[in-house]
Formats: sequence, structure tokens, C-alpha cells
Amino acid sequence: MLGCKLALKEDNIDQRTIINIPGGQKTVTIGEGHCTIIAGPCAVESREAYLEIALIMKEMGVHILRGGAFKPRTSPYSFAGLGEKGLKILAEARELTGLPVVTEVLDIREMEKVCYYCDIIQIGSRNMQNFPLLKEAGRSGKPVILKRGFAATIEEWLFASEYILQAGNNQVILCERGIRTFESMMRNTVDIGAVALLKNLSHLPIIVDPSHATGKRELVKPVARAAVSAGADGLIIEVHQNPDKALSDGPQSLTPDLFADVARDIKKLAQLYNKEC
Amino acid sequence: MLGCKLALKEDNIDQRTIINIPGGQKTVTIGEGHCTIIAGPCAVESREAYLEIALIMKEMGVHILRGGAFKPRTSPYSFAGLGEKGLKILAEARELTGLPVVTEVLDIREMEKVCYYCDIIQIGSRNMQNFPLLKEAGRSGKPVILKRGFAATIEEWLFASEYILQAGNNQVILCERGIRTFESMMRNTVDIGAVALLKNLSHLPIIVDPSHATGKRELVKPVARAAVSAGADGLIIEVHQNPDKALSDGPQSLTPDLFADVARDIKKLAQLYNKEC
Amino acid sequence: MLGCKLALKEDNIDQRTIINIPGGQKTVTIGEGHCTIIAGPCAVESREAYLEIALIMKEMGVHILRGGAFKPRTSPYSFAGLGEKGLKILAEARELTGLPVVTEVLDIREMEKVCYYCDIIQIGSRNMQNFPLLKEAGRSGKPVILKRGFAATIEEWLFASEYILQAGNNQVILCERGIRTFESMMRNTVDIGAVALLKNLSHLPIIVDPSHATGKRELVKPVARAAVSAGADGLIIEVHQNPDKALSDGPQSLTPDLFADVARDIKKLAQLYNKEC
Amino acid sequence: MLGCKLALKEDNIDQRTIINIPGGQKTVTIGEGHCTIIAGPCAVESREAYLEIALIMKEMGVHILRGGAFKPRTSPYSFAGLGEKGLKILAEARELTGLPVVTEVLDIREMEKVCYYCDIIQIGSRNMQNFPLLKEAGRSGKPVILKRGFAATIEEWLFASEYILQAGNNQVILCERGIRTFESMMRNTVDIGAVALLKNLSHLPIIVDPSHATGKRELVKPVARAAVSAGADGLIIEVHQNPDKALSDGPQSLTPDLFADVARDIKKLAQLYNKEC
Repeated sequence: MLGCKLALKEDNIDQRTIINIPGGQKTVTIGEGHCTIIAGPCAVESREAYLEIALIMKEMGVHILRGGAFKPRTSPYSFAGLGEKGLKILAEARELTGLPVVTEVLDIREMEKVCYYCDIIQIGSRNMQNFPLLKEAGRSGKPVILKRGFAATIEEWLFASEYILQAGNNQVILCERGIRTFESMMRNTVDIGAVALLKNLSHLPIIVDPSHATGKRELVKPVARAAVSAGADGLIIEVHQNPDKALSDGPQSLTPDLFADVARDIKKLAQLYNKEC
Repeated sequence: MLGCKLALKEDNIDQRTIINIPGGQKTVTIGEGHCTIIAGPCAVESREAYLEIALIMKEMGVHILRGGAFKPRTSPYSFAGLGEKGLKILAEARELTGLPVVTEVLDIREMEKVCYYCDIIQIGSRNMQNFPLLKEAGRSGKPVILKRGFAATIEEWLFASEYILQAGNNQVILCERGIRTFESMMRNTVDIGAVALLKNLSHLPIIVDPSHATGKRELVKPVARAAVSAGADGLIIEVHQNPDKALSDGPQSLTPDLFADVARDIKKLAQLYNKEC
Repeated sequence: MLGCKLALKEDNIDQRTIINIPGGQKTVTIGEGHCTIIAGPCAVESREAYLEIALIMKEMGVHILRGGAFKPRTSPYSFAGLGEKGLKILAEARELTGLPVVTEVLDIREMEKVCYYCDIIQIGSRNMQNFPLLKEAGRSGKPVILKRGFAATIEEWLFASEYILQAGNNQVILCERGIRTFESMMRNTVDIGAVALLKNLSHLPIIVDPSHATGKRELVKPVARAAVSAGADGLIIEVHQNPDKALSDGPQSLTPDLFADVARDIKKLAQLYNKEC
Repeated sequence: MLGCKLALKEDNIDQRTIINIPGGQKTVTIGEGHCTIIAGPCAVESREAYLEIALIMKEMGVHILRGGAFKPRTSPYSFAGLGEKGLKILAEARELTGLPVVTEVLDIREMEKVCYYCDIIQIGSRNMQNFPLLKEAGRSGKPVILKRGFAATIEEWLFASEYILQAGNNQVILCERGIRTFESMMRNTVDIGAVALLKNLSHLPIIVDPSHATGKRELVKPVARAAVSAGADGLIIEVHQNPDKALSDGPQSLTPDLFADVARDIKKLAQLYNKEC
């Protein structure tokens, strides 16, 4: 991994990148000493529903809102998001709640638009080695959540971040969301060791997505607690008013009540570890 | 998994198997509401060294001692343990410290001997589907730590426990020790989601081995914390006075000082989760 | 897999898509009854070298030339191809040899250019679920070689092809290039069973890339023979005049002499299986 | 892999272990220059059925009979074989057909019995690292088929063979039977590259089990052909008079008619590769 020049800590220096997210009412910080909670539905499904859940998230102490406007779907016949309309709803939710918003960018031709409406851009698992997209995200200057490819080694993941860093953007947040293994009882296998390892190797913040990592609502809480205990700097969690009716990822989405319970637990843990939450 | 009759919880009943380990000065309990710490060197290397580390472990609040007398080694040319001599040292350490001892049984023909000297028998990863050994462990009546095969599905693991349970022994403790994936920067990938899932599916206690799960000393603490936060009922950790000189698993063994730090953290977490530790 | 409407065979019909590649001196066919050999260097490194190897390939009976102009590299510091200059060299090689050429498209914004200069476009492993790119490849109307993602299930792969098919382009050639497993002695694990399974499930042609599948020159011949014996409709093989000096994938590249030996063997096998080669 | 002293070829010497199996009417050879076919049902289910299929196999040119007397089953509630009664039926089938017989040994305490009745002993996947069993197989002096563990690296597999070789028994036949990956449409992923690699690295013969490798009857023929083309020295194939009624592995068992077709193809391939079959 010698070739990885920017993503690794320099020898013997406990260097840490702290990222400040503008856009909302007050700046939100991601990085060492913080436990940042990002939450919201998998996809923006309608204006009404999104604004409603956004307000609920705000009340529950969430720091950043999530919501997909462009959804990468295995099948071309599945719901692929509201597109630009979804971006506008996200921007409206930010106005309403004062919270910054994050959404995934799928198509390099929509990078400008996504940057215009949102505060953090997310590069999803399937695009972790979409190198033109990484470079463009680097040029955008926006904070980037870089999800680990579901079969990417830690080395490849760091090199993917290097593409963004090298383009002059040092605001990269790594996101572990589970890797693919032979185990089929969960959607993915969350690699909690990777979180711990990366806190040692890299100065970049790392967060965990316990929703995609397990694919099961009832596992979100224990895995979220495990993530913070392993050193994660934050969480990204799917919440939906009515998961059974969700257009995507229903089985792994929490109801607001279940989420409130997770958030309480996480805040207690953050206190134990002297992290702001 | 319908065929798995004994290892699963019955519907709607939050059934929990609590295992009491006799043998030491006082009974040690493994199961819901407890966070049991098992520690010691990978292998029993000599009488002096083992008795010394055993006393240190006792002082640091460890509940059960570990130490291998029969070591399964990839190469026939590696150190394979002291055999019966090792078992006798383990029994002596129990006398000295008042703590129960656990060791791995490799050869079905040595089952009686292992049961004679030790308080808990361990079935290792490589033998998770050694069915004659499982049945014999079932007949032994001793508490059994059943490690997950490094490529075993959760279903296969539960069925392996079923072999022991069906032979009339309900004292089975599951142990997650990492699975094999494409990631090569750690020895294994600890499947923290499996811990959470099994707490829902099965009434059996489950512990985690953060030493084998990562293969790296510096990751033992964060992974141990993650394990307890995901719901694990205990930990099994490798500790060695001089890891650099260890005859096996040196890179993942903690020094006593490092272990003391881990133990402190775990005790705090146990308190947060209302677990005895 | 019910949702996969276009890539699967209809029940009880031994439907087969046969793809005719124009562009060269004579039309080249890929599909049932043929064993099509695609060969050339990993990357187009210089005009002189490429034209030289192209002529050698032509003499050795190769049907289609390969050569990367845009290379997806794990590290941003590795050679990433000659870009448009490489495309022009490919077009010149087609003029010179009369053979059609295939190259990978990485960036959706370069789709038109790649289609202008080349006869087949390749979507690489890392982009197998780059959905905007798939749709654009669908709209292009060009024959597309769709490589399997290195951790993609067969179902996901077929759904990826469905994105191209649904956009109105039925000229899709699947390419198995090895999947990622725990085995580290080879670059990938070639999934020869998937080749056999897909010949049953889908009407699309399927070829195998024994070079990436193994990462080792000495394994290209046995794996190429295995692929054809499992039912593959063709092969794509890396050949370089001087593999030790190759700017990418040297260890898996054959010298022309070694390639000639593989080609002889494949031609014999094709005869045994009544395939044109 | 330097520690592996006996299983590897010495540098620059194309050393090959050829194993002669006595026991039948005429000696059967496994190793370079031969393509040995082992066939029969997964388990010996009854005397009548086994003797019948044994005669059919004999007629179809099979060289060695297979049949399980002790079956390793994931669930303790599944059919586990006829035990000693099964061994006697195997011996009777040998008398009847003049073909040597192979069966799996599961329990080290039954090693003598298995050696008494059978000509080759098989160590199954789940026992690949059952080191006491390996050593005992080494001491037995019988030819041993050593199946690859379904998540064993090639290095671990060679080291497992080393346990047998080191105990003084050089009659080891490696058997690739598929590894476990994320792909769920087949029972396992046959690692055809490993066959090719091992022909380079080791002097031991290697055979392939296309039945377990795929778990699907219709894939046995293409995978068997691929195996021989990759360099395998033989095949072990499951055949059953009435697969739908088989007590184990029905979906992957061939009917005698389907097997006859596979055998014809394999004999043609063997001829092409100048192998006796």
C-alpha cells in the first residue's frame, strides 16, 4: 500500500481529518471526537412523506438527512428514484429543518446538479471503482461519503479515496456498509474489523451503515452499537414512516419509534467514549 | 432451518440457556445478563509460564482460563502442543487460581482425558463439522464451546450445535471467531451481525474471539468492545507474557498490560448494558 | 429471477442469439456453433507495438483484436491508457489487419468516441453495475462485451445485461473473467460452472477471459481449454510481445509463441465440439 | 509454502506420483497419462440397489466404484449411511464386478474397518483439517483421496496432504470438489484454475468431483469436460438409478443413461489429450 500517498496517516503522527459540513442552520462536524448520525429513508418517495420524516428526524436529534434521488437498482424494472424532483425535495427539507442533506450521485453528468442541491455527495458501493466519477467528485470540492464496494479490499477502498483526494478534495468520509460473503442469512457481512483497522491506518473519518450491512431491521441497533464501539465516527441509518410500504429497502428500514430507541443507545455510548453526539 | 429443533428458540418465547461452570472456586456463569471473560495464552508452552500468566489473569478479573494442549496446525511441522502434559498444567493452574479451565479437544480418542482435566471443552473451527467428535462431546456432559467453522453458514453452525444438544448435552456455548473472506489485511472477518442474529434466533449463549477474528493485537480492543455491544455474552482473548516469543499466534496475543486495558473497557461496557462482569 | 425478461431463454425453446460483428474485412460471428478468439495486449501502449502485435495476431488466426485505450486502475498513479490516441491506433490496426477491434469504455462521456473508432465496446468488471453506462451502451447499438463483476452473482449479471437489452440493443456477449474468493494464489477464481449454467439459462453468447481469471501466464492454456469444454463461445486472451515490459498485466500476458500453442489447442477442441474456429 | 516439503515438486523436475490401486480384478492406475473414472451413488442405500448400479457402472467402463457407508450430514436428522453394513456391500460389489471400491471414513475409530473392506479411503471436505484422521490415514498405507475443504486455500490443502505423506504414505490423490463463494445458484464454485495450478506445483494426482462442485445434474457433463481439459487425472461422479428417490444428493446425481453420455465425451477428450481412459 506504499503507493497510497494521501489517504494514509504519516508514520507516527496521529493525524485526523475533521470535516465541517456547511449548508444547514449550523455547521455539522464529522471526524474524531464526534459521533454523527445521518438518517432518513432509502429513497425520496414523495414531497409530503419526505418533509414529514425530515421533521421527525430533526426532532430526534439527527445531524444530517439522507434520501436517494437516484437509486442504483439491480433490475431495470425497479423504482429508480425521482431524479431531479427528488433533489429539489431534499433542498426543501434542508430549508425546513436546517439540517444538511446527503444523496447519492450515480451519473457523472448529474454531478453538478447534485452538488447544487445537496451538501454531501455519496458514491455508492457499485461505483466505488467508477474512476471518472471519483475524479469528478474530487473536483467538485463537496464532502464525499465513499461507500466500500461490497467486494472491495481495504486497499482498493483506500485507493478509491485517493482518486478523490488527489483531485484536490480532502473531504472524504469512508463508509463501511457490509461486504459480500457466503453467508446468506443477512444481506451483507459488516466488516467491523475494517473500521478498527482504518482508524489506525487512515486519517479519514469512517462511518457505518448498519441498515445495508444487515438488511434486517432488528439487527440495526446491535450493529450500530458495535460500530460505534469499534471506533466509527458516525452512522447512516434508514428510517421510514411505513417500512412495509417502502419502495426500496423496506425490510431494513426502522420505524421512527425504533430509530428513537437506537439513537438513545448511541448517545449513551458516545458519552462513554467522550464523543459529541 | 425448520429441521433444527433444539438450538432455536421456540416461537415467541425469549428462552435463554444459562450455563453454570463448576470446577473452580466458585461457579462461573455464561449466558444472558453476564459478560464472561476467558483469557490466557494460545498454547500451554511450559508449566512455569502458564502458572505465571494464570495468576496474572486471575488478578485482572478473568473468569475462566484458556490454554491449548492440543493445537491444530496447518503444517505438520509446527508446534502442536504439549498434549497430556499440557492438560495436567491446566489442572494445576485451576488449583492455583480457583478458575475453571477450557481447552480444545482435537482427537476423539482423547475426549475422556480432556474431560478429566478440564472444565469446558472446546471444539475448534476446523472440527465444527467433525460429527463423531460433536456427538462424543454431547455424550460427555461437559460444557462445550463450539467455534464457528471459518466458512460455515449460521445454519450449519446451529446444526453442528444440534449434534451436541441431541446427544443430551444442552451446555453449548457458540463462539464467533471470524469467517474467511477475500479481505487479506486481517486473519479473518469477524461477523458481528451473526452475533446479533443468533441472540434473536437461538437460546444458546454466544461469545466472541477477537484474537483469531482479526489476527492483530491492536484490533483486539475495538473488536472486543464491538462484540459486547452487539450482544455477545462473553469474550475469549489470547494473552501472552511475551507475544514475540509465543510458539503460536504471537501477532494477535496481548501483553498483560494491553489486556488490562481491554478488560477495563469491557467492564465499563458491561455496566452500561447491565451485565455482570 | 422472474423479473429478468429479456436475457433468459423462453421456456422449452433453445433460443440462441448470434451476433455478427461488422467492421473488419469479413463479418465475424459470436455465438452458438462458433469459437471466437479475441486477443491482443491489455493496453495499447504505442502505435508501433500495437500494429506489430495486431499483425501477428492476424497471422495466428485471431478473429478480433483487443487493446485498452482507457484502463481502469486501482491506483490513480498507474498507467491509465493512451485515451483517444489509443482509439485511433485501434482503428488503424483494423485497417491494417481487416480484423474488428474491441476496447473498454470507462466514462459515459466518451461513449460516442469509442463507438466511432471501435467495433465492439467492452464494459469492464468494475462497471458491471454502472447503470447509466449500461443504458448508454444499450442506446449505442454496438455489440457489447459485458464482463461479470468480480463479486456479482449470476442473477445480477443477467440483470445488468437486461439494462442493455431493454434499451433496445440485443447484441450482448457475456464474459466470465473470474470472481473474487478467499484463494490468493491466483488473481481470481474462474467460475467455469457459471459458463455451463448460463448456456442453459440464457440465449446470450458467453466467452471467457482466462488471462484475468488466473493472473498467471502458465494457467491460460489449461483454463482456456476448460472454458471451451464447458461450452464457452469464445475466449479473450492477453498477448504481449514482451510481457515483462508490459505497462499492465504483464504476469498474465502470453508471448506470441505461447499464444500460438494455446490457439492450436483451442482449434482442435473446437473441431471436437463441431464449432467453427 | 516453503514448509511444504513432500507434496511439492522439486525444482525443475517434472516429478509425477503414479498410484496403482490393487484390490480389483486388474490394477487400476491414477496419475499422469491416465483419466480414471470413479462413479456410483452418493450413499450405499441397499444391497440390491448397490450391486445393480455397480454392474451397470462396470459395463459403462467405470474404473473404480464409489459409495458412502458413513455420510457426513449437516443435520443430525438426515440419513447418515448404513455404516458397517454398507462397507460389506461395497466389498461384495468388488467381488461381483472386479472393480476396486472407495468410501469415505469419518470416524478415526473406524479407520481399520474401512481399510479392511475398501481399496481407497476418502477424506471428505469437512475433515480436510481433521489432523488426527489425516495422520491415521497416513499410517494406514492405503491410497487416500483427499477432498479439498470447501474454504481451504490451496496451501492448506497441500499441507493437509503433507500430514498423510509425512506419516509415510505417498499414495495421495487430491480431489477438487468446489469451494464456497457468494454465488448461490450452484452448490459450490468449482475452482478449475486450482486444478491447473496444482498440476504445476505438486507431483500428486488430482481429480475433480463435478457432482458436488455444482449440485446440478445438468452441469456435470460440461464441468467434467472442463476438468479433464484443465488437466485433471480423473473424475468422481455420482450416479443413481433413480435420483429423485436418492436418500442424499439426488439433484446432482446422474441417471445411468446420462452418465453413459458423459463417459463417452470424456473418453473422446482423453484420446485427444493422449490419456488412457
